[in-house]
Amino acid sequence: MLHRDMHFRNGATPTEEMNGAGNLMDFLDEPFPDVGTYEDFHTIDWLREKSRDTDRHRKITSKSKESIWELIKSLLDAWSGWVVMLLIGLLSGTLAGVIDLAVDWMTDLKEGVCLSAFWYSHEQCCWTSNETTFDDRDKCPQWQKWAELMTGHAEGAGAYVLNYFLYILWALLFSFLAVSLVRVFAPYACGSGIPEIKTILSGFIIRGYLGKWTLLIKTVTLVLAVSSGLSLGKEGPLVHVACCCGNLFCSLFSKYSKNEGKRREVLSAAAAAGVSVAFGAPIGGVLFSLEEVSYYFPLKTLWRSFFAALVAAFTLRSINPFGNSRLVLFYVEYHTPWYMAELVPFILLGVFGGLWGTLFIRANIAWCRRRKTTQLGKYPVLEVIAVTGITAVLAYPNPYTRRSTSELISELFNDCGALESSQLCDYINNPNMSRPVDDIPDRPAGPGVYNALWQLALALVFKIVITIFTFGMKIPSGLFIPSMAVGAIAGRIVGIAVEQMAYHHHDWIIFKNWCRPGADCVTPGLYAMVGAAACLGGVTRMTVSLVVIMFELTGGLEYIVPLMAAAVTSKWVADAFGKEGIYESHIQLNGYPYLDVRDEFTHRTLATDVMRPRRSEPPLAVLTQDTTTVEDVETLIKDTDYNGFPVVVSRESERLIGFVQRRDLTLAIKNARQKQDGVVSSSVVYFTEDAPQLPASNPQPLKLRRILNLSPFTVTDHTPMETVVDIFRKLGLRQCLVTRSGRLLGIITKKDVLRHMAQMMNQDPESIMFN
Amino acid sequence: MLHRDMHFRNGATPTEEMNGAGNLMDFLDEPFPDVGTYEDFHTIDWLREKSRDTDRHRKITSKSKESIWELIKSLLDAWSGWVVMLLIGLLSGTLAGVIDLAVDWMTDLKEGVCLSAFWYSHEQCCWTSNETTFDDRDKCPQWQKWAELMTGHAEGAGAYVLNYFLYILWALLFSFLAVSLVRVFAPYACGSGIPEIKTILSGFIIRGYLGKWTLLIKTVTLVLAVSSGLSLGKEGPLVHVACCCGNLFCSLFSKYSKNEGKRREVLSAAAAAGVSVAFGAPIGGVLFSLEEVSYYFPLKTLWRSFFAALVAAFTLRSINPFGNSRLVLFYVEYHTPWYMAELVPFILLGVFGGLWGTLFIRANIAWCRRRKTTQLGKYPVLEVIAVTGITAVLAYPNPYTRRSTSELISELFNDCGALESSQLCDYINNPNMSRPVDDIPDRPAGPGVYNALWQLALALVFKIVITIFTFGMKIPSGLFIPSMAVGAIAGRIVGIAVEQMAYHHHDWIIFKNWCRPGADCVTPGLYAMVGAAACLGGVTRMTVSLVVIMFELTGGLEYIVPLMAAAVTSKWVADAFGKEGIYESHIQLNGYPYLDVRDEFTHRTLATDVMRPRRSEPPLAVLTQDTTTVEDVETLIKDTDYNGFPVVVSRESERLIGFVQRRDLTLAIKNARQKQDGVVSSSVVYFTEDAPQLPASNPQPLKLRRILNLSPFTVTDHTPMETVVDIFRKLGLRQCLVTRSGRLLGIITKKDVLRHMAQMMNQDPESIMFN
Repeated sequence: MLHRDMHFRNGATPTEEMNGAGNLMDFLDEPFPDVGTYEDFHTIDWLREKSRDTDRHRKITSKSKESIWELIKSLLDAWSGWVVMLLIGLLSGTLAGVIDLAVDWMTDLKEGVCLSAFWYSHEQCCWTSNETTFDDRDKCPQWQKWAELMTGHAEGAGAYVLNYFLYILWALLFSFLAVSLVRVFAPYACGSGIPEIKTILSGFIIRGYLGKWTLLIKTVTLVLAVSSGLSLGKEGPLVHVACCCGNLFCSLFSKYSKNEGKRREVLSAAAAAGVSVAFGAPIGGVLFSLEEVSYYFPLKTLWRSFFAALVAAFTLRSINPFGNSRLVLFYVEYHTPWYMAELVPFILLGVFGGLWGTLFIRANIAWCRRRKTTQLGKYPVLEVIAVTGITAVLAYPNPYTRRSTSELISELFNDCGALESSQLCDYINNPNMSRPVDDIPDRPAGPGVYNALWQLALALVFKIVITIFTFGMKIPSGLFIPSMAVGAIAGRIVGIAVEQMAYHHHDWIIFKNWCRPGADCVTPGLYAMVGAAACLGGVTRMTVSLVVIMFELTGGLEYIVPLMAAAVTSKWVADAFGKEGIYESHIQLNGYPYLDVRDEFTHRTLATDVMRPRRSEPPLAVLTQDTTTVEDVETLIKDTDYNGFPVVVSRESERLIGFVQRRDLTLAIKNARQKQDGVVSSSVVYFTEDAPQLPASNPQPLKLRRILNLSPFTVTDHTPMETVVDIFRKLGLRQCLVTRSGRLLGIITKKDVLRHMAQMMNQDPESIMFN
Repeated sequence: MLHRDMHFRNGATPTEEMNGAGNLMDFLDEPFPDVGTYEDFHTIDWLREKSRDTDRHRKITSKSKESIWELIKSLLDAWSGWVVMLLIGLLSGTLAGVIDLAVDWMTDLKEGVCLSAFWYSHEQCCWTSNETTFDDRDKCPQWQKWAELMTGHAEGAGAYVLNYFLYILWALLFSFLAVSLVRVFAPYACGSGIPEIKTILSGFIIRGYLGKWTLLIKTVTLVLAVSSGLSLGKEGPLVHVACCCGNLFCSLFSKYSKNEGKRREVLSAAAAAGVSVAFGAPIGGVLFSLEEVSYYFPLKTLWRSFFAALVAAFTLRSINPFGNSRLVLFYVEYHTPWYMAELVPFILLGVFGGLWGTLFIRANIAWCRRRKTTQLGKYPVLEVIAVTGITAVLAYPNPYTRRSTSELISELFNDCGALESSQLCDYINNPNMSRPVDDIPDRPAGPGVYNALWQLALALVFKIVITIFTFGMKIPSGLFIPSMAVGAIAGRIVGIAVEQMAYHHHDWIIFKNWCRPGADCVTPGLYAMVGAAACLGGVTRMTVSLVVIMFELTGGLEYIVPLMAAAVTSKWVADAFGKEGIYESHIQLNGYPYLDVRDEFTHRTLATDVMRPRRSEPPLAVLTQDTTTVEDVETLIKDTDYNGFPVVVSRESERLIGFVQRRDLTLAIKNARQKQDGVVSSSVVYFTEDAPQLPASNPQPLKLRRILNLSPFTVTDHTPMETVVDIFRKLGLRQCLVTRSGRLLGIITKKDVLRHMAQMMNQDPESIMFN
């Protein structure tokens, strides 16, 4: 037995294969086109994709021994994975660099223009100027505000109003362009894209979501959306852009373009590259892809993701958009250690982050649901225009909201070093103070700080409210940056409060030893960073990747404990109000078939409770192996919309022999009717190994064993649903057949599983009973 | 149907459960002791462990609503995972600190003693001395070499010989103590432990391997083994020690001690804590556990591992064994950037690392096999003594091998800063040189450097040879440090060569711009680090975790590209000669049932080719649901040694209804014979829901449905083996039944799968045929 199998399986001829064992190889021979592909909005079968790839690999390996050319082809095939990673890294790094430069320029364009070269941003304009001193490095004659340029007056009420007006006008123009481009050219380019990418990576097919057109439009509109000053970030969309790059390069190699499973390995790595360029944190990016986005993440993908993430990060650095040759988005360095007692405010920030996460998710989902269900959803352009208008009107007067959100975060994170000219660092530095400077370090807050605190408090309220309405509009919008901004503002406020308390009450027992001469008592910037981590954690429920990204920003293990304390607290607080992060909530809102790896299914139901048909329903639609006619099959296909049909020995015995996909069945019959003589409606369809010799008067039989999956997945009716859920998750099944003592009883599809899980989680047992 | 099920499953009474659905719950009720546990050297069933945990969790959740005390208990249960992590972190950090301190002291004890306090190491002794200047910080009167102490002469041939002799004596004493302790008290304490931990984590049971006794002895003997100067490291054994800690704390909570699956989650996290303290690299430790050691690594474990790793690292830092309040083992900081052309030597180092990995694995496995199969293995104590003697005799004369290996690596990694007094930094610094100093930077190598090069070359050969014989002896021995030492030596030699080339030929086109005034041309320390990464990668085949550990050592993304280039090259070169790393090779050598996640199974065999019984064998041993007698069962148990038996409706129909574990069957019958009246040899065993009413004359029937697993895993005979392998891996099965059209054909166990994989990989098809 083993001998025979070994023989024909290694050097098989097609005829032997036909009635042979491996039905999976038949798909590769592609007897008719499109067999083994998927329709749009369907779920892939991971096991089948994996088998197909192994077959392909086996073919290449056996061919490679034939000639030197085949050997080279097989080597190229083996290396194609790395080539794709390199290309993804290069392209997504370049795009991120271009986006950064363009956003920089266009954000400044809202306020003014560089006279010496209009394509320079404010910072670049004054850098190249040699008339500026270091202190006044953002004031140079080449850079003129619009009012100055148009009226000649830089100051005064008139100039302020004119600048205000033009700021709003530019913002409206940018956002109108963005939403129009999205509407007209690529509707999939809106939103952050992460919920959809999670769904796609879990095995769902959404054609065009990662297409070239989406890539182009998303890149352009992302620049416009961010520049318009709306409360949104570029991080989520950058992941989408990187995944589009990944998909683009997949099409270069049939290994990836023809296998949905392999394609998803590339996309997982692309997501890592996206986060890597968004923050300049390659390790954090890989962990983000592993923890948050990916579904199937073998070790090989881990290594390749890391490679792609590094290439992307270094490409971005060589473009050097931030002009400081730093890799990271917010580079910070702190000089003061933290004290155990500071964990109390850090944990409070964690609680705040958790509450903010809950509030944001609930309010945003409620608003998005309203948008979906009411008239509101019909006017996306108007909505964007309105929100942009409100944002611009409210943001301009407050210096902390007028600038771009990432600049704001950067300032809040920073320590008040010697170079700082910000309001936030306006401490009283009077040598004639009542207490000698040497006695206590640090300084009391000056009027600038108190002023900044008020403005920050207003900015906090503004950001909280406007972000809820912004996320989910029909433009590219990420929520990493707005979430971090909310946390950073809250953190900085708390930080200053603690600092001033420690200064004014430095003789209290808990503040003892905090303030040493010549050093600051506490680092308010660290509080901002902890707050940002807490808020981001509350919204997304990231944990390890969040801490690692923050670790890469600071580059020191010193501050991991505060960050972890806040991240853990924030996750626990947020989880207490609802297990789902914003991405899972949006997946659910959109009704995507996503089987979350993290949801634990703990109910005591059995496969028999979930399988179809239910008691009251008609019996399962099955085919028999040798008594169904072509007409019967066609009727069945017409009358039902199942994705496939089990094949049994006979209706009486109900013994299962295999499973056939609806799509393959339709294609096979269509093909046979066109090309195979004698196949008519009354032809009998045979799924057996050999069709019997029929009298000539009978119509020609149709042999379909090669499209029959002879190894369908089965469980018994007594299998606990938790095991079934586990099997669906880990093996990535589309459906599973249910048997009892060898008899076919029913079928469970991925959608049945999802429906059942939703029922069990959202409803109490009483309400399920009457369903 | 659903209603009824919902009802009795949520508030079930035992009677209802008996003939109810969930057979898995019955295990929890534990009708007789030990049901559901495993024997030593058996494989666990992951699905069953998971189900049992869900049942336990469900019970606690439903109970928690009853009273406030039960609520508190359920909260404690939910928190126990974090408590265990905290305890593991604290204990393994403490143990690592104690080991570091003890090794430091005992390593120095081989050379001399501190007169002011004999428990001080050389460094500590001279720190506390106030008679030393900074330059002579390792020469202080309190520290005396043995010869000086005994004869009064510090210098001279006599003193040298005496010191040499005592060095060997101490080394022999330490290693003799180590091997004797291992032999007498804890045989499992030998080796690195990582191969066994990998096997245990994959679901194998080795009782006592992670026991308290092993923990104690491994900690003590690790100190002795490292201090004896043998070419071994403490990193691998530290992972074993941390896992022992994990196992120890598991026993505090029944959640972990009674569930082998949950226990393995804790052990995965403990492994991360082990690497974290070994290198001071918490993120690298988590990735090491994920990439190299763990088998089942859910996201929850990722987060907890990270917590444990951080706690361990901070505990170690507060003990501060290295006296520099640095977290990492080898802290380095480089000041010179690297140039593109340097990638050539880096890649060459990668090739060297790959070759070293291959050589080491082949030679070490060959030697270990010889040890297992010949007389050699019978004298482990003699072997250790002999190797220690040879090591000590050869190591003493060379200053680079006399000191501890981690000190050596540390010196090789370091830049020649201003403070460096090492031979390696003996550059000619003559202002009257023919060329002015300002013209070219850097300096020509002095005689010290050339001398050091010779000694390093000898040390390289010595380390390469002796490590092969050391790893695998009956003492705790890790190979991270020796591998890194080999790479660091090779790297430093290459680094100095490149440096001198760049210096002497600084006008060559490739060296142009390398040497700028006031800075070094290249950093030889970086070459040492790259070489270390390459050699470690070649031996262990770590990739991401290796780069991340190295990244945490340097703390800068700057040097990730050189490290990655070397690590990738080394892995590719080593993989070209054999896919397995040293741990997998040792697993195979010891014949552990380890199903590697990374091996791709690409052969075209089917389940029918692998299942038992084969054609020539007697039919499968099965039980029938209602016709087998107690005596039949007992005979079957006596005559076979299978782990379990399928239960079918009848021998004729061969319809499968369930699977019963041998252990449960034995216990159930034993229990029934003792406690249940009327159960005799001729009693019929019923696996059906209800036993029929028998006449009083018939013996009392034995109902065993509750030990029957009603949801055994089945595949069809046509299922490709690659799918079967995938299912075994992902679901962690012990066995799987094979059916065709509902009829039971055979069984595939994990061992069958492993045997088949080994056959297909090592032998060509021709030789399998005749098996």
